[in-house]
Amino acid sequence: VRKTKVHMRLVENVLAGDRLALARLLSLIENQEAEGLEALADLYPRTGNAHMIGITGAPGTGKSTLVNQLVRRLRAATPDGEEASLKVGVVAVDPSSPFSGGAILGDRIRMRDLCGDPGVFVRSMASRGAPGGLASTTGGVAQALDAAGFDVILIETVGAGQAEVDIARTAHTTVVVTAPGMGDEVQAIKAGILEIADILVVNKADLPGTENAMRALQAMLEMGRPGKADLDGEKRDVGPAWCVPVLCTISTEGKGFDMLLDGILQHRQYLHDSGGWGERERERQRAALNALIRERLVERFLDSQPDGKFEEVLEKVVERTLSPWQAARELLQQENT
Amino acid sequence: VRKTKVHMRLVENVLAGDRLALARLLSLIENQEAEGLEALADLYPRTGNAHMIGITGAPGTGKSTLVNQLVRRLRAATPDGEEASLKVGVVAVDPSSPFSGGAILGDRIRMRDLCGDPGVFVRSMASRGAPGGLASTTGGVAQALDAAGFDVILIETVGAGQAEVDIARTAHTTVVVTAPGMGDEVQAIKAGILEIADILVVNKADLPGTENAMRALQAMLEMGRPGKADLDGEKRDVGPAWCVPVLCTISTEGKGFDMLLDGILQHRQYLHDSGGWGERERERQRAALNALIRERLVERFLDSQPDGKFEEVLEKVVERTLSPWQAARELLQQENT
Repeated sequence: VRKTKVHMRLVENVLAGDRLALARLLSLIENQEAEGLEALADLYPRTGNAHMIGITGAPGTGKSTLVNQLVRRLRAATPDGEEASLKVGVVAVDPSSPFSGGAILGDRIRMRDLCGDPGVFVRSMASRGAPGGLASTTGGVAQALDAAGFDVILIETVGAGQAEVDIARTAHTTVVVTAPGMGDEVQAIKAGILEIADILVVNKADLPGTENAMRALQAMLEMGRPGKADLDGEKRDVGPAWCVPVLCTISTEGKGFDMLLDGILQHRQYLHDSGGWGERERERQRAALNALIRERLVERFLDSQPDGKFEEVLEKVVERTLSPWQAARELLQQENT
Repeated sequence: VRKTKVHMRLVENVLAGDRLALARLLSLIENQEAEGLEALADLYPRTGNAHMIGITGAPGTGKSTLVNQLVRRLRAATPDGEEASLKVGVVAVDPSSPFSGGAILGDRIRMRDLCGDPGVFVRSMASRGAPGGLASTTGGVAQALDAAGFDVILIETVGAGQAEVDIARTAHTTVVVTAPGMGDEVQAIKAGILEIADILVVNKADLPGTENAMRALQAMLEMGRPGKADLDGEKRDVGPAWCVPVLCTISTEGKGFDMLLDGILQHRQYLHDSGGWGERERERQRAALNALIRERLVERFLDSQPDGKFEEVLEKVVERTLSPWQAARELLQQENT
């Protein structure tokens, strides 16, 4: 590993708690710049301590307010065996605006409440178009926060696309947020994030339909949850099974957060007791390694291509004189010669 | 290309209008089986005629009912210069249920209305875990329908994740569906699909808040839409600009569909006049080619690895004796030797 003075100083400053250095590092990671990746590699042995919590749900469920509220509660909590209050990092992933960088507004709204607290660090990611892909970049940012000494890292994602599922897979604990009146059972199946939930929350519980929503979720859980075990392709029969709680909150009034906090801490305990913590750690690393390898393979391929070759072959595909499969074969042969 | 009798007969039967053969082909494509991909390559010269329409929006917007209604209208329409009614294919992409195959229920609900019409073919995709990735598989299925002679292909996607945006990019016309009361402007920015919309629809227009929703969308469009041109990384200044219409529908009652149909047909005309049709075609092919190449690169890499090597290196990463970057380097060097 080539070490530059600049990135070593960055690492030192991040470890010393310098927030500006941390912000700079996260930008470098987001842009996949060599300096950032080298710093991240140096910080890597310091990682593995933070509790990563994924918070996901459709737009309109009040997820951001919930995260805001949760951060305050985590800051006030003193879990067993810990003296100081928890340091909390937030990574808000906005798979939105591919072109106009939708994270800026969210950032400002979010920061208003939490700024000034040195035990909190919030990062919004204008994720689309990130060179290394959403899941990979988010993983890097979370790792940097981990190394920087944040005890809990909340990873907030919007929606229920594949990217969100991938991100949830890398969290230790996944909280799925819904709201009353967001749709019937079929819609909930479509949202398809039930399977990845460790804790289900019906937010906006002051709205009508809250009890119905909770009952419906409970019924769906009982109906046919294949079990988180399937994530890894094999059954885990170590320790007692985790029973997914269905909770309700009113984020705007801070109601229901004692239960939510309790659920999160209990799930952490469960993961430690059952061996699930290590398994999820391995899953995260597996995904990260796979993503890295994919990236490098593509880079190497692109380097091997003569200028204009790709466009030339693409033209033939558009004209239908070559099928995409033949075109791929032709370009890949190029690499081998 | 190795040609087996089986896949050649499949191609013949699909071209002859055999629905069972088509269903079988789509399954083969979904599972990325060699037979299906060979058939698709043979069918490729027959593609390029269908109007691909992406229909996307969050759960709860009544998208499926809208698609259902739209299919009926398209079947009844006789656009200028066309004598027979349009043949319509539907690809419903459910990025949901990674583990339990959430498409089954949707399928049944959907088919109830449309079955019996030989000019309609509906395919629901239980997309997660598809070997070739969502966008790539959907592209293959749409191409097969195109070759099979369907004039219009509706591609319905849920949510606003990266996969959905990728799919929308491959459509000629993208219809974004919202509903009143699904959230305020910030939420709409988060949904982040405004930028990819060619037509905006507020569905469930019998609910209160419809006019507000339409006004908000209109305001956001005026505020700072970067222009679809940015999709390709360069400005298009050929022909007149497309002005995104904001329409409203009540799908359950079939209201508003004259305007929607009109908008869709006008957009098709616009694409033909402006050269946008060819540009989007090229974008689709570029994305498909990129996805194929990525896939093959990963396959080749995996073939090159000795058994157990990946797990061995992964273990070191989990133990923090190797960083993911060092691990990736080690595994990639393996390939070169």
